[in-house]
Amino acid sequence: MVAMFTPEPLCVVATGGTLDKVYFDTLSAFSCGEPQAPPLLAAAGADHPVSVVAVCKKDSLELTDADRDAILAAIRARPERRILLTHGTDTMPVTAAFLKDKVPGKTVVLTGAMQPALMRATDAPFNIGFAAAATQLLPGGVYIAMNGRVFEAGQVRKNREAGKFETA
Amino acid sequence: MVAMFTPEPLCVVATGGTLDKVYFDTLSAFSCGEPQAPPLLAAAGADHPVSVVAVCKKDSLELTDADRDAILAAIRARPERRILLTHGTDTMPVTAAFLKDKVPGKTVVLTGAMQPALMRATDAPFNIGFAAAATQLLPGGVYIAMNGRVFEAGQVRKNREAGKFETA
Amino acid sequence: MVAMFTPEPLCVVATGGTLDKVYFDTLSAFSCGEPQAPPLLAAAGADHPVSVVAVCKKDSLELTDADRDAILAAIRARPERRILLTHGTDTMPVTAAFLKDKVPGKTVVLTGAMQPALMRATDAPFNIGFAAAATQLLPGGVYIAMNGRVFEAGQVRKNREAGKFETA
Amino acid sequence: MVAMFTPEPLCVVATGGTLDKVYFDTLSAFSCGEPQAPPLLAAAGADHPVSVVAVCKKDSLELTDADRDAILAAIRARPERRILLTHGTDTMPVTAAFLKDKVPGKTVVLTGAMQPALMRATDAPFNIGFAAAATQLLPGGVYIAMNGRVFEAGQVRKNREAGKFETA
Repeated sequence: MVAMFTPEPLCVVATGGTLDKVYFDTLSAFSCGEPQAPPLLAAAGADHPVSVVAVCKKDSLELTDADRDAILAAIRARPERRILLTHGTDTMPVTAAFLKDKVPGKTVVLTGAMQPALMRATDAPFNIGFAAAATQLLPGGVYIAMNGRVFEAGQVRKNREAGKFETA
Repeated sequence: MVAMFTPEPLCVVATGGTLDKVYFDTLSAFSCGEPQAPPLLAAAGADHPVSVVAVCKKDSLELTDADRDAILAAIRARPERRILLTHGTDTMPVTAAFLKDKVPGKTVVLTGAMQPALMRATDAPFNIGFAAAATQLLPGGVYIAMNGRVFEAGQVRKNREAGKFETA
Repeated sequence: MVAMFTPEPLCVVATGGTLDKVYFDTLSAFSCGEPQAPPLLAAAGADHPVSVVAVCKKDSLELTDADRDAILAAIRARPERRILLTHGTDTMPVTAAFLKDKVPGKTVVLTGAMQPALMRATDAPFNIGFAAAATQLLPGGVYIAMNGRVFEAGQVRKNREAGKFETA
Repeated sequence: MVAMFTPEPLCVVATGGTLDKVYFDTLSAFSCGEPQAPPLLAAAGADHPVSVVAVCKKDSLELTDADRDAILAAIRARPERRILLTHGTDTMPVTAAFLKDKVPGKTVVLTGAMQPALMRATDAPFNIGFAAAATQLLPGGVYIAMNGRVFEAGQVRKNREAGKFETA
């Protein structure tokens, strides 16, 4: 039974989104910076094997079909079975539905944040923690982990007015 | 299958620990304040039913047998099957071993923090997020969730020098 | 001599800028929110009389001549002699030069931030503290307080590449 | 007139206090760590010459006559005329009164914090900013800068219940 809890190697696949937003004073603009999930894992002392692949640094509204193909290719190319996919929230359900059934044998958990990780008040570290556990504990499949809940790909939408994910 | 992911009601049982440390200027001292797990759950928009029971507000080195009995009684008295138990790290393995086999049918996950939730750099929100997912997804039993890992009660110790939990 | 240090009433005139940037998830965009200087003053226990006038909530690159006229009118209309003017950094020197010589008898200190007050790493509270002291202690005139320095209106520019203000 | 605002070299003399409190997990205790004023100055881009002398790392209730002699000696030994003295709040008025009239020609401003600089909610960066300006702008003498105000040495006390400094 102990073996069940020896964490398998984890791959963080990062695509940008609010989670990774940084304010660049030289541009007077916010845009996606370096992936924030790895330093959050490190800050919690989660030092089992973690690799990081940054596919793109985009708002999820700007993701194209080519970007989703690149995300899929990145997940398939990795040896790890446990994939934590960080993603903007607006089209997170779209990407989850796209990946569903395309990555057999892997557990892919999408998460992100409503407020950037670098803000004083942010849901980012909670969400990365929640998703990290879900990635380790869920069986193969594609999931969204937001608002302290697990949703299955294809059965979830973002309610923008409420700032929440809900079953669909 | 969706039903599996409808979160069951969660009970946070709080006992104090570094997680809840606050600096009281009027005393010029740090001591345990209000439980920090509930506001961290709320900040992540985790608004499924969550109840809170504060058993005590102590460093875990100060916990007595009577305190552990009170923790056990609190868990048994709650209707929820999913229990997130926040606890100081120093004797977290002791309390986990004490609870093991005493709460059949319940999933009890202990977590805490190496740095207070109110510090600028803290593992608290990650740990609460990780433990919240573990509480929802693990089968009945008593576990410790720290350092991005799940440990089973009775098979874990804190390595104080390394500032990490490890299997024992 | 004590009287010298009894703080005169202070008026915060807010115009927006990076200091006040907030991330609005419903818009997936950052824009200027409520003035951040007043809560920063309150958090430091600076509870001598402080009034607040929000003239606009704009990036300083978007400020028009009409906005600058409104800022001037707001300063003139206030009974306080001590004015802390929060402002975006890009055109802060322009507004300072515009106000120079137009507000005799008043001490007007412009400040702002390179990173929003709500970010985890920000110069905002330091700058508001520095500017609050400068507003109390400087003789009548118009000044910019940034980078831990006082600059005189008309003799300062922002070096955007360096992210610093410098004498001009 | 510009010369007036070219900042003179600043010396930070650090003694500990709440400002510098750090939580050491290996000790399960808070105690004074490295001086926090220099990184706060740096974060605000205050890069004019700043030197740092750490005289001790103590709660101010633990400061002895020998410590105060060491503080005085450190101030006298420095070539800078502008001294920012970081200090615990409980006996800040005692040290200010002790230094009064002993450092002719120098401007010494004592400040500290009610909440550690490393806490999420803290008055530390505001206070260091406020005190940095006061150190530059005040004439020779010994002052306390707290709560957004300047107090003269010998005419100030801490009201512990209110968590505020007030004239005495």
